[in-house]
Amino acid sequence: LQVSAEPPVFLEVENEVSLVAGSKLSQLRCSRDGREWNTQLPSSVVTAAGSSDVLAVACQDRMLSLFSSCGRRLLPAIQLATPTSALHCSAHFVMALTARATLSVWDVQKQKALVKNESLLSILSGADATVSQSLLTQQGVPVIGLSNGKSYCFSSSLETWTLVADKGDSMVQCADFRSCLPTHDAPVSSGPLAVMQGRNLNAGRLASRLSSTPHHLQQSMTLAFLENQLTSALTLQSAAEYRHWLLIYARFLVSEGSENRLRELCKELLGPVHKSAATAWEPSTLGLRKRELLREVLPVMVENLRFQRLFTEYQDQLELLRTK
Amino acid sequence: LQVSAEPPVFLEVENEVSLVAGSKLSQLRCSRDGREWNTQLPSSVVTAAGSSDVLAVACQDRMLSLFSSCGRRLLPAIQLATPTSALHCSAHFVMALTARATLSVWDVQKQKALVKNESLLSILSGADATVSQSLLTQQGVPVIGLSNGKSYCFSSSLETWTLVADKGDSMVQCADFRSCLPTHDAPVSSGPLAVMQGRNLNAGRLASRLSSTPHHLQQSMTLAFLENQLTSALTLQSAAEYRHWLLIYARFLVSEGSENRLRELCKELLGPVHKSAATAWEPSTLGLRKRELLREVLPVMVENLRFQRLFTEYQDQLELLRTK
Amino acid sequence: LQVSAEPPVFLEVENEVSLVAGSKLSQLRCSRDGREWNTQLPSSVVTAAGSSDVLAVACQDRMLSLFSSCGRRLLPAIQLATPTSALHCSAHFVMALTARATLSVWDVQKQKALVKNESLLSILSGADATVSQSLLTQQGVPVIGLSNGKSYCFSSSLETWTLVADKGDSMVQCADFRSCLPTHDAPVSSGPLAVMQGRNLNAGRLASRLSSTPHHLQQSMTLAFLENQLTSALTLQSAAEYRHWLLIYARFLVSEGSENRLRELCKELLGPVHKSAATAWEPSTLGLRKRELLREVLPVMVENLRFQRLFTEYQDQLELLRTK
Repeated sequence: LQVSAEPPVFLEVENEVSLVAGSKLSQLRCSRDGREWNTQLPSSVVTAAGSSDVLAVACQDRMLSLFSSCGRRLLPAIQLATPTSALHCSAHFVMALTARATLSVWDVQKQKALVKNESLLSILSGADATVSQSLLTQQGVPVIGLSNGKSYCFSSSLETWTLVADKGDSMVQCADFRSCLPTHDAPVSSGPLAVMQGRNLNAGRLASRLSSTPHHLQQSMTLAFLENQLTSALTLQSAAEYRHWLLIYARFLVSEGSENRLRELCKELLGPVHKSAATAWEPSTLGLRKRELLREVLPVMVENLRFQRLFTEYQDQLELLRTK
Repeated sequence: LQVSAEPPVFLEVENEVSLVAGSKLSQLRCSRDGREWNTQLPSSVVTAAGSSDVLAVACQDRMLSLFSSCGRRLLPAIQLATPTSALHCSAHFVMALTARATLSVWDVQKQKALVKNESLLSILSGADATVSQSLLTQQGVPVIGLSNGKSYCFSSSLETWTLVADKGDSMVQCADFRSCLPTHDAPVSSGPLAVMQGRNLNAGRLASRLSSTPHHLQQSMTLAFLENQLTSALTLQSAAEYRHWLLIYARFLVSEGSENRLRELCKELLGPVHKSAATAWEPSTLGLRKRELLREVLPVMVENLRFQRLFTEYQDQLELLRTK
Repeated sequence: LQVSAEPPVFLEVENEVSLVAGSKLSQLRCSRDGREWNTQLPSSVVTAAGSSDVLAVACQDRMLSLFSSCGRRLLPAIQLATPTSALHCSAHFVMALTARATLSVWDVQKQKALVKNESLLSILSGADATVSQSLLTQQGVPVIGLSNGKSYCFSSSLETWTLVADKGDSMVQCADFRSCLPTHDAPVSSGPLAVMQGRNLNAGRLASRLSSTPHHLQQSMTLAFLENQLTSALTLQSAAEYRHWLLIYARFLVSEGSENRLRELCKELLGPVHKSAATAWEPSTLGLRKRELLREVLPVMVENLRFQRLFTEYQDQLELLRTK
């Protein structure tokens, strides 16, 4: 008997029931929101997980079955190469971890693999660490936390493991951006990036340590840290966290007078002004319109007189695009 | 000397011919529809296969060459990691099985891999079975039949092996949907699903066995079976079989009064009614318009008075969409 | 201390610097066009490479970091499974070769993998050869040259290694297309195909050898060679070389009177004439409009009276499409 609960979904399993003469089946009974359904599977159930959209059941014959919220089978049974050791469901995404430390993620709605049988050995080997946490975001991004404080997500577009958080990184501890924190914005503490970085991340936590670090070094470590946050939020497909860190980053660039980086950032957000140009530029990122983001970044610039010209330049171009 | 025939394509091979001083080549002569062409390859030909669109030739140096119907080379020579043990061509698709039990499929028209070097071990290991059948559908889907009665297809979107038929499954034998078979529809016996399931599949074949099975159990096994058929036809990209089983499934849901499932099915086929909503819903599946399918499903509902309201509800929405 | 130069980009590295009490970091200083930036990385730098758009740095902890031209981090740190042995950058593409002879390529602009951890063993095994050259084209196509004279590129759409050049191939040496070389076209000697084939490729180089080869054999070897060049240029995404060899190929087909192949070629370039037909035909290849290419091929046909009708047929259809 097993139970899996996320929105309250209850699953009752009876393995090896003799239902029909001569053959044994597993009997599943699932209830949620007062609605019940049941079905049979030809092999013993090993593990199961559910979300609002999908119920995933892994059996001893290495078969993975996926059902809708009312019990309709969504895909034919998936034959895995190795036994499943853990299942996670989130929205319409399903993640399977196998006994041989490989990870797969499917988008059940699009009937499509996002991550295919990727080995955790890439992140475990040489690290002398174990998996301490595994989660699947609402966007279907798998994240693995290790016992050494490092967290990795597998990017389905880069098709590789990327480091999104490292609790032991001394650069994280030296980064100081206290002056750039938003005053009225709500803190973004529930996103996957915040979850993986944990309490370790209070800006300027090591003030004593910082006092002994030369300013230019601390500046470049803070830059490195903030750019890590931005790219990590992007890879985690966490739009709210991306916007949050983008504004802190912009404030920091302005206060430190980093013109090259600020110019590169604005250029990327604005994109090509003339429609004629064939381009690989995407107008939005994680569902956020880049030019809307630029509109939020521009007011930050006026705080440093050095950027008066840069501000006017981009303000004018945005105005031009609006009236086109 | 080898011959491969599908539309009558004849291939004559002479290996190790000394054509030019000092080097040995293979000489290929191909004839079809009275048209002939010939070419040379630098290594001995091991196996070959052809379809209306493409001729595939595998050589001893692990090179795979693909030619058009008039002998034009379509792709540069493909270097395989292991020797080819079997080739299949179907329409503009080519499937290669290698000596190390891996399978690849290419779409020659789009110059694109559909399946890349996938191991059969996932489906063979622990099964104590051998490959008894291998085929490539007209849609480029590879299907492998094992000696234990199970058939798998590799889904290029799910990037995994899925079970599409199991001759020994007791649930298949218990499913009873005789009353839901179409009366005027032509039987769909030539599709890949029917081919892999073979003669085993006559609805209600085990009537004697069935009599001893409680009705609710038989009902849920029939549901499981029919949903397997639907998802299998989908994964095999077999449009005619999908439509065939969808209508049987709808009839069964109606006769058994399964409102939740019927509602979920109709909802999926209808899709969002308001255009404004951004959505991941696809208007067609396997080239069949989902709303056309819904139009075929609705008349089935009137056979059960319980679904009068559901019928009217979806009928109205379809009408609304038509007049928009 | 390391330096990497392509557009003059200079990189200075200091490993294991004690910057902050208790932890060691690597210090990077990069200068280009007089602009300088610096950053810190938590592990020792092993190798680095740069292009106009991107700087790639691989560290001892198997982390790969990618920076923009002004030092902004472009992606989160990528965790590789094995240590990097070589890095190449070209435009916005980065190629990593690892110690276990696997190759990866990323498109930094689209934040996307083009080639993922592909083993070189497929092309090395049984060849008794070593890697003598590795390059990444401006289109992000990886090319590997072996000591046995063969060159392979990994096609990200075919997801396989393909042979693009073979200096020792006797067919290459027998191909004779001297009469078909363009008179006014500039020679295409700087493309990746020309680079990999080297000096070996002068049409009719082995005239003495050729004299003893029967004409029909030489004709079919020349055809095979030219079709190899076409498909190789296509796979290398080398537009200029593709156009160059297409015109030579067309001239050769015309001079040898190969009607079937010429007709198939024209048909492919023209595509479907009626818009209604749903089709998989792409109007352009490597950024070249196929119908523009056909317009260049047609004048070649008039040189052989046999193709007067074919010429008129396609000329008329092009005219028809233009006026539509």
